[in-house]
Amino acid sequence: MAEKFVSERNLKFLLYEVFDATSLTQYPYYKEHNRDIFDMVIETALKIGKDILRPNLQEMDKNPPQYVDGQVRVHPSVKTFLKECGEGGWIGSNAPVEMGGQQLPLMIAFACRFIFSAANYSAMVYPLLTDGAAHLIEVFGTDELRETYIPKMFSGEWQGTMALTEPQAGSSVGDITTVAEPTEEGYYVIRGQKIFISASDHDAVENVVHLMLARIKGAPPGVKGVSLFAVPKFRPSGNGELVFNDVNIAGLYHKLGYRGSPITQMSMGENNDCRGWLVGEPNKGLAYMFQMMNEQRIDVGLGAAGIASSAYYTALDYCKERPQGRRLSDKDPSKPQVPIIEHPDVKRMLLFQRAIVEGSLSLLFQCAMYADMEIVLTGEEKEKYSLLLDLLTPVAKSYPAEMCILSVSQALQCLGGYGYCDEFPVEQHYRDVRIHPIHEGTTGIQGQDLLGRKVRVKDGKAFELFLEQVQKTITTARDIPELTSHAEALENAIGSLKQVTAHLLDVATKQSPEVFLADATLYLEFFGIISVAWQWLVQVLSIQKALEAGPSKHESQFYQGKLYTFRYFFHYELPKVEGLAKRLLEADGLTVGMNKSFFTD
Amino acid sequence: MAEKFVSERNLKFLLYEVFDATSLTQYPYYKEHNRDIFDMVIETALKIGKDILRPNLQEMDKNPPQYVDGQVRVHPSVKTFLKECGEGGWIGSNAPVEMGGQQLPLMIAFACRFIFSAANYSAMVYPLLTDGAAHLIEVFGTDELRETYIPKMFSGEWQGTMALTEPQAGSSVGDITTVAEPTEEGYYVIRGQKIFISASDHDAVENVVHLMLARIKGAPPGVKGVSLFAVPKFRPSGNGELVFNDVNIAGLYHKLGYRGSPITQMSMGENNDCRGWLVGEPNKGLAYMFQMMNEQRIDVGLGAAGIASSAYYTALDYCKERPQGRRLSDKDPSKPQVPIIEHPDVKRMLLFQRAIVEGSLSLLFQCAMYADMEIVLTGEEKEKYSLLLDLLTPVAKSYPAEMCILSVSQALQCLGGYGYCDEFPVEQHYRDVRIHPIHEGTTGIQGQDLLGRKVRVKDGKAFELFLEQVQKTITTARDIPELTSHAEALENAIGSLKQVTAHLLDVATKQSPEVFLADATLYLEFFGIISVAWQWLVQVLSIQKALEAGPSKHESQFYQGKLYTFRYFFHYELPKVEGLAKRLLEADGLTVGMNKSFFTD
Repeated sequence: MAEKFVSERNLKFLLYEVFDATSLTQYPYYKEHNRDIFDMVIETALKIGKDILRPNLQEMDKNPPQYVDGQVRVHPSVKTFLKECGEGGWIGSNAPVEMGGQQLPLMIAFACRFIFSAANYSAMVYPLLTDGAAHLIEVFGTDELRETYIPKMFSGEWQGTMALTEPQAGSSVGDITTVAEPTEEGYYVIRGQKIFISASDHDAVENVVHLMLARIKGAPPGVKGVSLFAVPKFRPSGNGELVFNDVNIAGLYHKLGYRGSPITQMSMGENNDCRGWLVGEPNKGLAYMFQMMNEQRIDVGLGAAGIASSAYYTALDYCKERPQGRRLSDKDPSKPQVPIIEHPDVKRMLLFQRAIVEGSLSLLFQCAMYADMEIVLTGEEKEKYSLLLDLLTPVAKSYPAEMCILSVSQALQCLGGYGYCDEFPVEQHYRDVRIHPIHEGTTGIQGQDLLGRKVRVKDGKAFELFLEQVQKTITTARDIPELTSHAEALENAIGSLKQVTAHLLDVATKQSPEVFLADATLYLEFFGIISVAWQWLVQVLSIQKALEAGPSKHESQFYQGKLYTFRYFFHYELPKVEGLAKRLLEADGLTVGMNKSFFTD
Repeated sequence: MAEKFVSERNLKFLLYEVFDATSLTQYPYYKEHNRDIFDMVIETALKIGKDILRPNLQEMDKNPPQYVDGQVRVHPSVKTFLKECGEGGWIGSNAPVEMGGQQLPLMIAFACRFIFSAANYSAMVYPLLTDGAAHLIEVFGTDELRETYIPKMFSGEWQGTMALTEPQAGSSVGDITTVAEPTEEGYYVIRGQKIFISASDHDAVENVVHLMLARIKGAPPGVKGVSLFAVPKFRPSGNGELVFNDVNIAGLYHKLGYRGSPITQMSMGENNDCRGWLVGEPNKGLAYMFQMMNEQRIDVGLGAAGIASSAYYTALDYCKERPQGRRLSDKDPSKPQVPIIEHPDVKRMLLFQRAIVEGSLSLLFQCAMYADMEIVLTGEEKEKYSLLLDLLTPVAKSYPAEMCILSVSQALQCLGGYGYCDEFPVEQHYRDVRIHPIHEGTTGIQGQDLLGRKVRVKDGKAFELFLEQVQKTITTARDIPELTSHAEALENAIGSLKQVTAHLLDVATKQSPEVFLADATLYLEFFGIISVAWQWLVQVLSIQKALEAGPSKHESQFYQGKLYTFRYFFHYELPKVEGLAKRLLEADGLTVGMNKSFFTD
């Protein structure tokens, strides 16, 4: 199997040359850190990826979780990895030190998640979910809940989950019906069913804690009556023992990919003995969940980009090794064949993958930077970065989720017939990566979030801030002769984004919400291409600087490669906004008018 | 599982209302047929699809072929199906009666292949390959070869294959090294290896006949030294017995999808006892193969469209049944949820699938019509249709192959988390459909075929004929007020196609073939969108006519659905040509300049 799954060089380029992660250490919150620590963390993550995660990638896929006697059995390497995660402080690595975390900048934590996802996405999900669940308890839970759960979760002994979905409530989370009945002892009695819950039961941990949405008896209907609970599989009793909490696994899903991680149906309270503990205030559960959602959604983007990175390096290796055909300008059949990387069409496929992976990653790190700024700053500045992060989150989730499917598909195509077979891990990547437009809010939901909510927030303030950020990059780039035409191309695209947005917001005031949001998914795609083009221009400013400094030959090759990938994006991907803008400006309600009865035959 | 996998109504619309298949019976070659026969054939195909193929779709996927003791074992239903195919005359259905065929128009034969592919693609491949192999023997073989092989192949007792690919010769088929040494007995002794050979060995037949490319000892290098042989697994001996012909199976590939059909590695002549019989003249093997290739490539398009059709109807069923969320204009959580087909974004996803499936199918039937015209006509008229068919074949292969992947992916997305699990067949469709851009010439190869060869054939005559055909449709449509704007949109796109093509042909005269063909894949995509837009306009002319005749309510719903799908294509898909044209007009050799060494990190 190909050894390489991420480019360490590119990670460091983004972290230090583009986003200057080290500058975060000037703020009191991150003052205990420095570049050496960051480097060590990244190198350790790469080592864990290589030594523990990667060797089990195909193994975990071919030996998916089994449901035996009411218990889920997972691949033995999960336990090894979770132990490593616990001992190394990987779970809650960005949580405050006072909570037992490492207080690591999100930018560094995200870099590590990208590495782990690239090495073995299914394995990565276990600690990631625990991290997210612990974060909810950390921010909204009582001291008692924190003390009971967080240390066990950070140590990797207990698994955490996010338990939202129910049979009748997937995208429409306000329709959950799991009931929580208050008792005089302080806990609630839980009854209901959940489906599609990742890592919700397995034998690599001694306990599982579900951060579960439920409805307190008598709560108002819809999203305003949803509360958050901690519902363990085994509840800690007074004497320190663990008592079964009537959380039952009804079955496992058999999935297209992402097979190393179990997804189950759960049934709570079959014997009327399932207890849950309220996290935060009643009826605010969804708001709490959504405060965490930014991070979860960015994790999805990282997961998609990670898988596509791995597929890309497998394809790159193959294209360098595989002789097939001759140059178009030299068809003499008596000459030896050339490696397929010599064919322009193959280079195009590789550049596409690199443009998507590295462009997505840049956008994700931009979001991480905003998240870190939100943490270290206060007042108006804090709000600014918070708004930018909120605006870009659906884009940073969906652009990688959608485009990395195409990227992995191109990787598979590079390998031809071999790509379709399981000798190489690309066919697995192709199956794994398909989950991302579905979980943590489908692409359709993200589109409505972006156009229906985020660009309208505070009278469009977030959107204005975003335009300012992009304009700053354009202004700087325009003054560099080699970049003038690209700066102008992005400026035109931004002009188009403004025009389309204004037009759609006008539609919102004059027509039904159906017509307004009918093409929200296309708007999201449109916004995504422009955002990633911006990120390529951001990167190229650092590349220009580095090339001017006269780098070594090897370093120069790296920068030249980035430069070509930047050009690729601007010449092959950015033009796609033209067709999208044309359609978005129509806003004619075509799909709204398509009557259900016309789908008859 | 969803019952419906194709729309019989739409098939009949295309066959009779759009392409007037019945008109073929006016020609002597098809004079024994009539509409009743065609209908009966279609209905029988639907019945076989429903009763024999469909029930084994998931079964065959979950129980893929096994390699046991040097023999490949396949699902028992393959034998049932092949028996049915043999008895019903489905293999060689379009072969001449004098050869034992049904002399059925290709249009009808293709409709049936589409039905079978939609029901169960893997199963469909068995008779399809036999059909293609028999066709080679029929056209190029000696009477002795015909008598020996064709009856056994048409009866389904013997499997046929196309054995081209070798470890060092995939896309570069001129690099094959399998050797054929002449003997005085008339046969050749074959030695070599083949890989990725579909249906090349299995226990549902008593013999397998490989139509194999090999190089006669001393033949010139490259494509000019490739000959075609019939190489059976068991060779018929003088006394009618079958003798093992030293064709050995070295192993099976484990594939992403298309798992019901075995793909093997083969080794011929391990004991120096593999005999092959020359088909046609020496060194013309590739030319023979390519004469058959049009049909093979159109079959790939049909296979892709078939799978996407099946996925679409599963998604449609689900969307009509699955309640989730409320109308955007009515968010009252106390009201019941609505079926997701009510959401414009879901209707958009369904319209996309329908636009791709029905648009692809129309283009494929257009090609079938050209193929039939080529058969029934003579002289200049014959040549005209032959040129049109040649030109459109790479498009009719690749547009469905590429777009149906996206179509099935949207079907999967309609089902959300359920789409990612194996309760529904969509995740299998998603795996199955991914083979199509790979086999029978990758998309990259098709792009080079279209731009590098087909549009330049006979000084661009084929391309001119194509433009004429499209212009005729535009001219008719422009006079219908409801279609004027769409006719103009297509006219603009055609203008852009002419401009891009002229520009690229100019590049060909001034720059290297590398620069000329660097974006041939994009050109193919561009050409494909325009061709399918044309086909939607062709369809809509028939729709207008039908609607004017005042159809029944049910019929009217069908036509209205088609009308919306037509509009969808013109408003969502056709605008994509704008970005593609922009890029194609650059022709700046960007990918050519990307040095291999820049792919270092």
